[in-house]
Amino acid sequence: MMPTLQNTTQKQTAGSRWNAGRMIPALLSTPDATFTLRRAMSDDLTSIIRLLAADQLRASVESDRQEDRGVYQQAFDLIDADPAHALIVVEAGGEVLATMQLTFIPGLARFGAMRMQIEAVRVTESLRGRGLGTQMIEWAIDEARERGAKLVQLTSDSSRLEAHRFYTKIGFADSHVGFKLGL
Amino acid sequence: MMPTLQNTTQKQTAGSRWNAGRMIPALLSTPDATFTLRRAMSDDLTSIIRLLAADQLRASVESDRQEDRGVYQQAFDLIDADPAHALIVVEAGGEVLATMQLTFIPGLARFGAMRMQIEAVRVTESLRGRGLGTQMIEWAIDEARERGAKLVQLTSDSSRLEAHRFYTKIGFADSHVGFKLGL
Repeated sequence: MMPTLQNTTQKQTAGSRWNAGRMIPALLSTPDATFTLRRAMSDDLTSIIRLLAADQLRASVESDRQEDRGVYQQAFDLIDADPAHALIVVEAGGEVLATMQLTFIPGLARFGAMRMQIEAVRVTESLRGRGLGTQMIEWAIDEARERGAKLVQLTSDSSRLEAHRFYTKIGFADSHVGFKLGL
Repeated sequence: MMPTLQNTTQKQTAGSRWNAGRMIPALLSTPDATFTLRRAMSDDLTSIIRLLAADQLRASVESDRQEDRGVYQQAFDLIDADPAHALIVVEAGGEVLATMQLTFIPGLARFGAMRMQIEAVRVTESLRGRGLGTQMIEWAIDEARERGAKLVQLTSDSSRLEAHRFYTKIGFADSHVGFKLGL
């Protein structure tokens, strides 16, 4: 009886799956290493901030100073408290090497399609080009499918040409223009 | 004392403002008419589906058949139950003439920036070009700012050139490529 109950709950509350922990943690592997993909914990925050700050496009915006930690902690708590989101890290040997944030967004458009949105994908520089990012995104797509989402979406800065090839190769269509307005 | 308590709550739970109803409903006006912008109710669903189905890019996907109503009703219930979302309609004389969906997404990136995402913006054809859409988006931007969001974002199909001019004129930067993967 339990599986039926769980399925019902999953359909009704986007994100409830993350709490069940059925698929997380997952194992990912490149030709020369194995990685654990799991939900981020508060202790991972310093490592995640470093990954964000290492991004050349955003280096001037992010801060790994201790006095700015509270800003990130507050954001982490909001993400962590809402089952519609999952902040993911990928680690090996106790070191966090990649991250992404997933959000489920219900909607009326496209015949009432639930969307999974992917934000803030970062893989540490030394590991790029080895297929780890592909496995992360394919894992996310599997999760989206399993949760009944009909669309996976993300935006990528227009200058990130390598990222565009990466997403196109996985199967994404570069069908939209992404508009942003800073406040 | 109440205002202080309310402010605290707003900071901690994205979306709580929608329930307070302080700013909704709002009045919008074009040179020759006045409109009410408000949160959508279940009774508006038929009108919203018609607006979605009238979109040439999506006409083949949407359905206003009675037997498909349940699919949209389920999506509506998910949106309505989560204070991170607000499904908005604009009406005049009891007729729903425009809609959009707003979602608040917390995140670590961009120094822990909360984002407002706008989806499924539709204005009935006879009212386009009169400034109603601009007022809707500007209202959304004001709401985002008031709720502490640091970024407003949306994607628009690459073929919607008029929409691109519209968003650029409001102040959005077409800085990103929007990737979508249908499941």
